[in-house]
Amino acid sequence: MSNPYHDKKVLITGGLGFIGSNLARTLVREGARVTLIDNLSPRCGGNQFNVAGIERKLRIVFGNAQDPAVLKPLLAGQDFLFNLAGQTSHQDSMLAPFEDLHVNCEGPLAALEAARLVNPEVRIVFASTRQVYGRPQYYPVDEKHPVLPVDINGVHKLAGEFYHQLYSQVHGLKTVILRLTNTIGPRMHIRDARQTFFGVWIRCAMEEQPFEVWGGSQLRDFTYIDDAVAALLAAGTCPHSSGDIFNLGGDRVISLSDLAKMLVELRPKASFKVRRYPAARKVIDIGDYFADDRKFREQTGWQPATPLPAAISRTLRFYDSHWKEYV
Amino acid sequence: MSNPYHDKKVLITGGLGFIGSNLARTLVREGARVTLIDNLSPRCGGNQFNVAGIERKLRIVFGNAQDPAVLKPLLAGQDFLFNLAGQTSHQDSMLAPFEDLHVNCEGPLAALEAARLVNPEVRIVFASTRQVYGRPQYYPVDEKHPVLPVDINGVHKLAGEFYHQLYSQVHGLKTVILRLTNTIGPRMHIRDARQTFFGVWIRCAMEEQPFEVWGGSQLRDFTYIDDAVAALLAAGTCPHSSGDIFNLGGDRVISLSDLAKMLVELRPKASFKVRRYPAARKVIDIGDYFADDRKFREQTGWQPATPLPAAISRTLRFYDSHWKEYV
Repeated sequence: MSNPYHDKKVLITGGLGFIGSNLARTLVREGARVTLIDNLSPRCGGNQFNVAGIERKLRIVFGNAQDPAVLKPLLAGQDFLFNLAGQTSHQDSMLAPFEDLHVNCEGPLAALEAARLVNPEVRIVFASTRQVYGRPQYYPVDEKHPVLPVDINGVHKLAGEFYHQLYSQVHGLKTVILRLTNTIGPRMHIRDARQTFFGVWIRCAMEEQPFEVWGGSQLRDFTYIDDAVAALLAAGTCPHSSGDIFNLGGDRVISLSDLAKMLVELRPKASFKVRRYPAARKVIDIGDYFADDRKFREQTGWQPATPLPAAISRTLRFYDSHWKEYV
Repeated sequence: MSNPYHDKKVLITGGLGFIGSNLARTLVREGARVTLIDNLSPRCGGNQFNVAGIERKLRIVFGNAQDPAVLKPLLAGQDFLFNLAGQTSHQDSMLAPFEDLHVNCEGPLAALEAARLVNPEVRIVFASTRQVYGRPQYYPVDEKHPVLPVDINGVHKLAGEFYHQLYSQVHGLKTVILRLTNTIGPRMHIRDARQTFFGVWIRCAMEEQPFEVWGGSQLRDFTYIDDAVAALLAAGTCPHSSGDIFNLGGDRVISLSDLAKMLVELRPKASFKVRRYPAARKVIDIGDYFADDRKFREQTGWQPATPLPAAISRTLRFYDSHWKEYV
């Protein structure tokens, strides 16, 4: 089978982060010529250890992916751009909205402006979030669901989506937008809940500390990182690249309490307690969410290959081996 | 009848602009204690002559309404905030997207952050735009119509709306959002088409130069400035202030060709020619638009009081008297 990324030039913004670095590992394995840009912002997930072992097989640029002057020379000649740099914490976005604006609006806009100016043929994949929907009005949530973000992060990620649609429609760029749900797996941020609450759960489970489940009955879906990487790669070569939007879901829908139980079964010395949502979080919580991702499955043939218990188990084993690099 | 603005403290961002200054004039007449902030940005509509004759009856701050440090001391103690500072040109937003981001995202966010910190009780009215809908899917366009902006300006104005909704829902601020259509009247920007194409038409008609009508069959609605001011005032005291969104329309729906004829009837030495849309504009044109504004009419009793021919006639007479201040 031919490999569409072999010998292709690929730029990944936020490339030292959880998703970016896992994507880079797969691309390196497939023979792509990979450049990463990351500023290792303390609030984001960048970590140099994420590329341990492949450092010599790619180019790493420590720089600001919100600056068109930095991006323009990097983008020239690239075949693919994975526009992943972002700030993911909902709570941080409420506490520091201007910083979120800078990272999540200026960043994607800078990448698109650079592409327009120096490389209008590059294929662009933008990592968005289910957060743009806000509190779902029906389930499963498909791409036609109205958008009504309930936090600043959602507002800015939605603006990022609109930029990608506009630059396709107005300037002819080739862009695809993936709305990710919770992505979990090796190299996720576990120091705090900035990428997902599940990072903190993993950390507590590893430390055999009790972790807190807020609410507990909320339904969610989870994408294992290898499946998310496969989806990003499929999006990059998807024939629909006129600002098309696709949801990405997981292999099942599960309540947070059941997810906690699944984790504790794998680490029996861990434990959890269910508590009420803290007020500051409740007000930006979206309740249940799970995606209808049939549109993406039908267009690309993608489907999640990793059952949730295996996803959690592999994640735990990764941190067993690399604990000190992530805490 | 009691006047809800008498002796009340009112802050208007973008207060030297077309809408802001007309609002200020009415508020001064009604006995409000008005403060304006405006940075007289060359691309926006600020003009000191807009407040000629009332300068001593209000306070003018020449400053940056995108800076929370500037806004915080101004907002303390205010009863009302009209959040009007903005960049309105669709074309400029495509050519200088970061500038549009600064004015139309950072600006409203700065005002809301300042309100949250120093004056969470202030009543806030945000001037948004029909541009957030993009190309309408049905007519007349009501507030439930999906939002899908077709230019950067629309993306950023929509983000501004979401901020006002969020700060109401999360922080309890009292906010109302008006989606304006074309607003016309005395003190509009006529040097170029940055506020509305109609400014250029007025200018050409006054100069007895032929003006261009692009397309011509597009249907639009127009709000006369006095009616827009009445709507803003009604929004400020509207009981629905939890980020509620209201469309504002005009007294009739008219094609651009018929509007051009109406203008030429009032200035018989003027003339126009219909031409095809220039490509760079066509791609961000929204086609027909006219609002369903029944929700606002029902909630507030507002209705347009100025027929379109009278609106145009009054506008022309204003520039007859004050031509040199606006060209």
